[in-house]
Amino acid sequence: MILKEKMTTYQAALEAEMRTLFHADGSEMPEPFYGMMQYHMGWVDAGFAPDSVYAGKQIRPILTLLTCAAAGGDWRKALPAAASLEIMHNFSLVHDDIEDGSPTRRGRETVWKVWGNAQAINVGDAMFATAQLAMTRLIDVGVSAEIVVTALRRLNETCIELTQGQCADMQFETRDDVTTDEYLAMIRGKTAVLIGLACELGALIAGADATTVSHYARYGIELGLAFQVIDDILGVWGDEGKIGKSAESDILTKKKTLPILYGLAHSPALQSHFEQSANTPNFVADAVKHLDSAGAKAFAEATASRYSEEAIGHLQAAQPQGDAASALDELTVLLLRRQM
Amino acid sequence: MILKEKMTTYQAALEAEMRTLFHADGSEMPEPFYGMMQYHMGWVDAGFAPDSVYAGKQIRPILTLLTCAAAGGDWRKALPAAASLEIMHNFSLVHDDIEDGSPTRRGRETVWKVWGNAQAINVGDAMFATAQLAMTRLIDVGVSAEIVVTALRRLNETCIELTQGQCADMQFETRDDVTTDEYLAMIRGKTAVLIGLACELGALIAGADATTVSHYARYGIELGLAFQVIDDILGVWGDEGKIGKSAESDILTKKKTLPILYGLAHSPALQSHFEQSANTPNFVADAVKHLDSAGAKAFAEATASRYSEEAIGHLQAAQPQGDAASALDELTVLLLRRQM
Repeated sequence: MILKEKMTTYQAALEAEMRTLFHADGSEMPEPFYGMMQYHMGWVDAGFAPDSVYAGKQIRPILTLLTCAAAGGDWRKALPAAASLEIMHNFSLVHDDIEDGSPTRRGRETVWKVWGNAQAINVGDAMFATAQLAMTRLIDVGVSAEIVVTALRRLNETCIELTQGQCADMQFETRDDVTTDEYLAMIRGKTAVLIGLACELGALIAGADATTVSHYARYGIELGLAFQVIDDILGVWGDEGKIGKSAESDILTKKKTLPILYGLAHSPALQSHFEQSANTPNFVADAVKHLDSAGAKAFAEATASRYSEEAIGHLQAAQPQGDAASALDELTVLLLRRQM
Repeated sequence: MILKEKMTTYQAALEAEMRTLFHADGSEMPEPFYGMMQYHMGWVDAGFAPDSVYAGKQIRPILTLLTCAAAGGDWRKALPAAASLEIMHNFSLVHDDIEDGSPTRRGRETVWKVWGNAQAINVGDAMFATAQLAMTRLIDVGVSAEIVVTALRRLNETCIELTQGQCADMQFETRDDVTTDEYLAMIRGKTAVLIGLACELGALIAGADATTVSHYARYGIELGLAFQVIDDILGVWGDEGKIGKSAESDILTKKKTLPILYGLAHSPALQSHFEQSANTPNFVADAVKHLDSAGAKAFAEATASRYSEEAIGHLQAAQPQGDAASALDELTVLLLRRQM
């Protein structure tokens, strides 16, 4: 309950901060440069007329604001960092969509699909710069210059890990010997480190000591890893209705997720099964059978549990305080149960 | 003479700084993630074996180091900023090459041509983050946190202008009513502001007062504008041998440069001439005749002179000191005469 209340307050403040950064006060139609960015954010349609589209869960900025408050800080001071991370996440989606050739996102055409690859690459670059600019606004709300420099350094160290994860992910597509360890290192870069940074920066801006900052950072990283592995499990065994996408899709697309990589490494039967076309009858059902007998589900569930426990352990060690602590607990449970 | 001496010293230090950032100490073959970036920098070949390829004029970092020294600072303190701007420039080249579909750069295949668009987009993103990280290293050489935050803010405000210029440049390709004013605003963003920032940051890091910093910034911007307009003039009337590219190319490709836009706006004869295929006999010679009678060369030359005088005026007003002042004068003359 407390989470919902806080999210309502936070999301309104976050949107105001981001609208300032994207020159989107809504008073006039944006020029195409800002219009394309506002389109990706869900604020305008492809003709740059006002629109309002679901813009994602905003987990990263919410975590930044909650950890700042839970570590004894004023969440308003962390707003520039929260906006920065949400914009950074969105920049990476714009470029990922080009790299993966994804035609739709959040129920609409992707930026490259509407305006072509060249403009879409540039839109992503402009959002990347905007995310950096967002972080520098910490200085305007009274955060010390030393902390702002640390935040910017950590932001870009994290971006290097992010691009490194993306590079590995693309290389994996053409390899058939990817190990589960390589996969876990890849999702750490591609997904977990930015969630870790979200928690780290909240605590840093609150003025927490180095040990506490580090516990929050580890909480976010392990939470991100757990979240991704659970996503992988649902991609094979999930209930389509609950997660809103076809539970069979990871098998049909032969996507190299954790349970599938484990299965391929431990089941020669699955290996030869995957050499067939996915259009053959019973392809999915037979693949699930092979995965189950290889112990892939048990392995993935044990991995997810390990990460989840690590996350919860680090959160406890960080000793969060007040309402925000309760909201963090609530958020953690919802994310790990995939009810958010 | 003094310029050549300083450039030798500066370029060695700059390369060392950049090699640290790209994990390129040369002791072992890089993994692909850093290898692709090192390839673009000219340090390795496409198989990641050591190579040494001309990596451009490095005007931006040289200007940063010279203005820092000329404003009374220690140029070594400005090295992180110099590296940052050179890497930022190179990031933009990687993405521009994809956006323009350019297959070669500096005599080799471009990154996208070797590894494909998806990896090349990601390589550019990683270089963008590396440029930011480079700037944060100012704090390690004793620059105050306040100045580092200002440098990072200015870096990203400049990147927004850069992407805005690139966005306009791409839009111009499909428009036939681009004005010379719109064109000059576009090259300001696409080319001039990063050169302006190079000079601004050198002075800022030297601890110069706001007026002096602003003169150095304006010097760089006007220099960048003059440089680009002179490039446009050479693109039509230049001597192929001197500038190393076909002087006829801007007419053959109907590129919308300053003199050509002026000609199209003032000569209906050029307009109808450009409606023909460029493969027709005497296409270039006839176009030059139309441009000359429309006064396009005179207009472009007057524009270049105005920018050049502004640049020189702001450099004088900044009151540069010592050897570095002489080197700056030398560099300015060489750039405006296009002998560098």
